[in-house]
Amino acid sequence: MSNFLLLAKQKGMAELVTTVCATGGGAFKFENEFRQQVNMKLAKFDELDTLIKGILFAEVQNPTECYFYENARDIMKSEKRAFDFSKPYPFILVNVGSGVSILAVYGPDNFKRVSGTSLGGGTFLGLCCLLTGCNSFEEAIQLATKGDNRKVDKLVRDIYGGDYDRFGLTGDLVASSFGQMHIKDKRSSVSREDLANATLVTITNNIGSIARMCALNEKMDKVVFVGNFLRVNPISMKLLAYAMEFWSNGTLKALFLEHEGYFGALGCLLQFNGEIAAALNETAETTTTSSPSSSSSSQSKAEPTNTSQAAETVSNAMNSTTTTPTSNNVNNSDS
Amino acid sequence: MSNFLLLAKQKGMAELVTTVCATGGGAFKFENEFRQQVNMKLAKFDELDTLIKGILFAEVQNPTECYFYENARDIMKSEKRAFDFSKPYPFILVNVGSGVSILAVYGPDNFKRVSGTSLGGGTFLGLCCLLTGCNSFEEAIQLATKGDNRKVDKLVRDIYGGDYDRFGLTGDLVASSFGQMHIKDKRSSVSREDLANATLVTITNNIGSIARMCALNEKMDKVVFVGNFLRVNPISMKLLAYAMEFWSNGTLKALFLEHEGYFGALGCLLQFNGEIAAALNETAETTTTSSPSSSSSSQSKAEPTNTSQAAETVSNAMNSTTTTPTSNNVNNSDS
Repeated sequence: MSNFLLLAKQKGMAELVTTVCATGGGAFKFENEFRQQVNMKLAKFDELDTLIKGILFAEVQNPTECYFYENARDIMKSEKRAFDFSKPYPFILVNVGSGVSILAVYGPDNFKRVSGTSLGGGTFLGLCCLLTGCNSFEEAIQLATKGDNRKVDKLVRDIYGGDYDRFGLTGDLVASSFGQMHIKDKRSSVSREDLANATLVTITNNIGSIARMCALNEKMDKVVFVGNFLRVNPISMKLLAYAMEFWSNGTLKALFLEHEGYFGALGCLLQFNGEIAAALNETAETTTTSSPSSSSSSQSKAEPTNTSQAAETVSNAMNSTTTTPTSNNVNNSDS
Repeated sequence: MSNFLLLAKQKGMAELVTTVCATGGGAFKFENEFRQQVNMKLAKFDELDTLIKGILFAEVQNPTECYFYENARDIMKSEKRAFDFSKPYPFILVNVGSGVSILAVYGPDNFKRVSGTSLGGGTFLGLCCLLTGCNSFEEAIQLATKGDNRKVDKLVRDIYGGDYDRFGLTGDLVASSFGQMHIKDKRSSVSREDLANATLVTITNNIGSIARMCALNEKMDKVVFVGNFLRVNPISMKLLAYAMEFWSNGTLKALFLEHEGYFGALGCLLQFNGEIAAALNETAETTTTSSPSSSSSSQSKAEPTNTSQAAETVSNAMNSTTTTPTSNNVNNSDS
């Protein structure tokens, strides 16, 4: 946050624009700092509303936005494939930021928050910093990529000597995350990379397990994972694809989106644009009153008709919202 | 395990008894060591069957076995109260050992494993050993008792500056476990006690959240928590009682049992006793063919009729099964 305010002062943004779009907790927490330090007002939008509007807009604009992993059961061989998400409803939306929110989405304006967990990207990063001394999300992911959780976790075969057949638990499943680390000589034999990998696998599998139960509860078969935790993080995406496939016997599909962590900012921009436009002309008004999926398309058509003022505000809004800390920004060190 | 084998050799157990009851993974993993090192056979019983039989037996024998926390919403004031568990069915059973198994129990011989998580007591102990340098479960719990997770976790108010009203998330809820630990000066300001407390709160709340979803899925309102993770661990029991009460708006009840971690051993002993007795007299035979709740009571009546051989085996069985490593023994350092 302090970085954005510094930039706003240096570049004299307050001379150019008076209002900045913001979503997430920061929109509330930092409102006074914006007013006092750079004399800017915040246009605040709910992070879950903007998240969904951003996703729907991106899906309409980009036919290859949504993808899944083919051969998900073989993590070494699983590969990205485009998924037709043009008929999305209903779906479970798992937003993995520093924490995790899980939504059941029934339609463009119809969703509920069904669950969540505090074990998210912030937990992965926080634990990795403590356990490995790393200093950034990118560094933590790099370490995890080179490590092996099997030296840290206790597997079913470490307990049973093989599979626990009766309940279909194969020997290579993790029975207890970090379950070998109470043994002194095991602790001294693991590397930073192993600890980072175990942390990533632990957090990712837990999210997958909770998401699967939500899908079961809501009787939905599509589970869409978004959020900055998935940025530069194919290990987690492949693990989630595997977990959905394995634990549901293929009845659940894990889906991912190319712009994983930026939908809140995008949706925020769209709503702001819509509201400004609505005050200016009728064309744009329809973009706020009609359903987001249609508004997404009419929105893009409507944009050229916006006044330069609206367009200017919007372009600045995009800059600001992407730097405004939100609860799904896992690697913002000053949020 | 090596400790038990050493003891068995020193005390010449093999001269006195030829068969040892065992449950959990160790019964399979260590079978050969038993045969080779102390010439003892293992009578192996499934850990979930024995767990439930042990619970039902204890409940019949001890009227104050089961309890709940009164005033669960106020952790500082919540207090143990006896709960009448004489009509138990149906209930969710959460067995928190090194990992966690969650069962839906419909009747004495009718249950299914509905879920589980690898984030259990082994994860708490493993992470505490890594983060604080402690060396035992008891030490980890002692540290946790003196710490404050709010210095480690990111709360909703750290993000929103207050509550996130729209979704009923109050400011003091944890939004991201360990969510402050990516900030260098926050890391340097937390104590071992704070880290242990945050680890305990993280693992406990995650188990509570998954258990709640299972109860929702199975439409059950009683959730019974057992396993060695709860031994000398009132913090976790009070947190679980709070979580069940809070997140279900009082529709779910968290229940606990006095002999938290020993039901597998007890049920194992009962089954073995039943099988031996079945081979000896008709009275006992009915105890293995009838339902466990009736067998639990008739079992206890039948015991005096057992031969000294059976009785002797059983008494040793109790010793061995309590020391045999099982997946719900969270503080066995050589499993």
